Amino acid sequence: MSGLTHFDDSGASRMVDVSEKEATQRLARASGLVRMRPETLRLILDRGMAKGDVLEVARLAGIMAAKRTGDLIPLCHPLGLDSIQLDLTATDAATLRIEAVVKVCARTGVEMEALTAVSVAALTVYDMCKAVDREMVIDSVRLEEKSGGRRGHFRREPT
Amino acid sequence: MSGLTHFDDSGASRMVDVSEKEATQRLARASGLVRMRPETLRLILDRGMAKGDVLEVARLAGIMAAKRTGDLIPLCHPLGLDSIQLDLTATDAATLRIEAVVKVCARTGVEMEALTAVSVAALTVYDMCKAVDREMVIDSVRLEEKSGGRRGHFRREPT
Amino acid sequence: MSGLTHFDDSGASRMVDVSEKEATQRLARASGLVRMRPETLRLILDRGMAKGDVLEVARLAGIMAAKRTGDLIPLCHPLGLDSIQLDLTATDAATLRIEAVVKVCARTGVEMEALTAVSVAALTVYDMCKAVDREMVIDSVRLEEKSGGRRGHFRREPT
Amino acid sequence: MSGLTHFDDSGASRMVDVSEKEATQRLARASGLVRMRPETLRLILDRGMAKGDVLEVARLAGIMAAKRTGDLIPLCHPLGLDSIQLDLTATDAATLRIEAVVKVCARTGVEMEALTAVSVAALTVYDMCKAVDREMVIDSVRLEEKSGGRRGHFRREPT
Amino acid sequence: MSGLTHFDDSGASRMVDVSEKEATQRLARASGLVRMRPETLRLILDRGMAKGDVLEVARLAGIMAAKRTGDLIPLCHPLGLDSIQLDLTATDAATLRIEAVVKVCARTGVEMEALTAVSVAALTVYDMCKAVDREMVIDSVRLEEKSGGRRGHFRREPT
Amino acid sequence: MSGLTHFDDSGASRMVDVSEKEATQRLARASGLVRMRPETLRLILDRGMAKGDVLEVARLAGIMAAKRTGDLIPLCHPLGLDSIQLDLTATDAATLRIEAVVKVCARTGVEMEALTAVSVAALTVYDMCKAVDREMVIDSVRLEEKSGGRRGHFRREPT
Repeated sequence: MSGLTHFDDSGASRMVDVSEKEATQRLARASGLVRMRPETLRLILDRGMAKGDVLEVARLAGIMAAKRTGDLIPLCHPLGLDSIQLDLTATDAATLRIEAVVKVCARTGVEMEALTAVSVAALTVYDMCKAVDREMVIDSVRLEEKSGGRRGHFRREPT
Repeated sequence: MSGLTHFDDSGASRMVDVSEKEATQRLARASGLVRMRPETLRLILDRGMAKGDVLEVARLAGIMAAKRTGDLIPLCHPLGLDSIQLDLTATDAATLRIEAVVKVCARTGVEMEALTAVSVAALTVYDMCKAVDREMVIDSVRLEEKSGGRRGHFRREPT
Repeated sequence: MSGLTHFDDSGASRMVDVSEKEATQRLARASGLVRMRPETLRLILDRGMAKGDVLEVARLAGIMAAKRTGDLIPLCHPLGLDSIQLDLTATDAATLRIEAVVKVCARTGVEMEALTAVSVAALTVYDMCKAVDREMVIDSVRLEEKSGGRRGHFRREPT
Repeated sequence: MSGLTHFDDSGASRMVDVSEKEATQRLARASGLVRMRPETLRLILDRGMAKGDVLEVARLAGIMAAKRTGDLIPLCHPLGLDSIQLDLTATDAATLRIEAVVKVCARTGVEMEALTAVSVAALTVYDMCKAVDREMVIDSVRLEEKSGGRRGHFRREPT
Repeated sequence: MSGLTHFDDSGASRMVDVSEKEATQRLARASGLVRMRPETLRLILDRGMAKGDVLEVARLAGIMAAKRTGDLIPLCHPLGLDSIQLDLTATDAATLRIEAVVKVCARTGVEMEALTAVSVAALTVYDMCKAVDREMVIDSVRLEEKSGGRRGHFRREPT
Repeated sequence: MSGLTHFDDSGASRMVDVSEKEATQRLARASGLVRMRPETLRLILDRGMAKGDVLEVARLAGIMAAKRTGDLIPLCHPLGLDSIQLDLTATDAATLRIEAVVKVCARTGVEMEALTAVSVAALTVYDMCKAVDREMVIDSVRLEEKSGGRRGHFRREPT
């Protein structure tokens, strides 16, 4: 563990210099959970079958947020993105799981873009349902997989 | 449970009309955790004592994100904010806790601003430490307290 | 016709000074059309009945754009908004009509917010359908109604 | 007509994956009209000869909006742009025509950037003249030409 | 001199809490200089008399930047603004002076908005002329006057 | 001196077409000064040794602003950046010097990104200290060095 690369020798924060790195195909996959009351999830899923769709609004919010990651995370490189995809699925009666996959051809990875997409989609679910359930919790936001770049393929062990 | 107020009768999404509500003093407090390896947290805390400071960068990212909540969350009202405060503290050897308090005088509450501040601060911690610990997890992002507005004071029960 | 109020006496552009005006309840309603091939509109409406929904994506894009009007239109005042609502309806076999209503309590009106919502929703329809119909046209973007402020109520004559 | 490429098989919206496409030189040209009363257009053109210049403000607004297209249109790829040019010309006594040409070397086209530039320039004309003519109408916003990319050169037939 | 109000007792940065302050009419005036070669200034002024106008582009850039001050300056409150005005005048053969006046009715002042307007207008002058004069210098960016708020009227002594 | 390249033949402003230029490694270095009372600088430096750090907040503000240069400067190309670094050092008892170095591989240079980083970092210093010293002045913001691109290496003569 060589230390935190966002700091230079004197300890000042900086954006890591990637100008010597090669632009390669990169992918990152992240996930997160929104825990809520079963009635809330039922309401989301029922409206999803009608015209209004919490899942669709959250998905769009996540996609749009991924594009603005470099604006939100101070030391993150601004990147054009080639693909962003979000899935939202109920994994049990009280849990909505969000997964984002982001791709780019760039000198640096897109973990932050995938994690930002998941977080903002989760916040949007909260916003749209808070009138009926203020106690929803966003849990387990984490990187699942990452490929491209010098450090090789990473895939998180299932827990 | 009367239904999801972000949808009108036909199910289309909309920004809730708050023009009839009164502008009152409002406060929201939210929190979240970043779980990591003890070495990672030690590294954060040690650098915090030198000039470079993960906690300070994350705090600023959270403050700046709170100001842009209306840009990120599709159906959230754009609000001027009167106060944003973030605290980041280690609660055990492997956990960093983030808490945000936001205040405004407005026609609608600032839960989303507080939750967005916490989420983006947590993502920033991830970004700055991911080179040494890709398996960090963001957990338990939730509303702790809310006051002002018609629906009265809310304080989450300790779990 | 006294002249263009965005220019001062020397002809330089400026943001009109509204500090002497009173904050009042204001509303603006704007509309626009997207003309397309009947097959394209049928495809939009059919998907609208399934989970994917061009209309929903366009509606959200319009809502989010309304919130950023002051960022896009150089001499427009930045405003918090109290309500934004968009309707998208087919008015004949080849025409989608978009209508936006925006409300605020402020020193200046929200015509630009309503017109921006309509325009960006229309552009989003174009974006989502351009792979099947590049010749869609955005037409008749205009102010329909406006109330609040010194100059009284305005309602466009039907043509 | 194979269907709307912004949706995946289950109907959820997504940003189309362009990672397999080649980066090529791309150009898009779009146009639109602002119809107004002859006195309004005369006022615009007269001020254009002095220091204040509606056309110049609208041109800049269009250029700046083109750069932010990926922020405004939910499923549009964020792109660096190599060139943006806008022309505003009176085509008859009551009509201002706006044309935008955008160029980039990228994996996807710039139709949306050109159309967004035209739309925001037109909205800016409206904003700057609305005090003297609220009934201006934005018409015929459409793609005129597009080159680069797999689907070859497109040029709209004159109507 | 009681200390830096942007820090709380433990030294962490925060956005100062203004929720107890009264909303009052506030004004700030700031200025700055762009020093350049006389030929450069002549070129600016000559084009200013034709259709292209460095001064007009810079003025708009300053106005638009003022509206985004809260986005740029980390601990600055986001504010709606009631008026922004910029003047650019040649004060000698090699100096362009920029002055901005900003007004708002708010709980906090608009010094940062006025200074940001001046700085971004000056940067825009640099951008538009850098092909002919890379050695231009931005000098003496400073607050000239401020009124409203608890601390009374401030007017900088002429130097 | 052939004229201002931001204008086309008719004098209208435009974003210069760089589509024929080659993408090369580019670097720009800019600097600026913040002049203040010695007590103010002492206060900054002392807090810098504790947890609160004006220099750190200003550094982050500069980094984030560099990433948004294309949004702020109307005719500037939007660019992904490979590296941004800021140094803030006291050069005498009353002067803080800010230097920014920006790198990119692109078709156009990054002078504006470096100058914007310096300007916004300086404005942030002003914001954080204005409660104790309203008369601070931002001086000598200028390009120090530039490499890459057709016009070769530039290094400003020491004055």
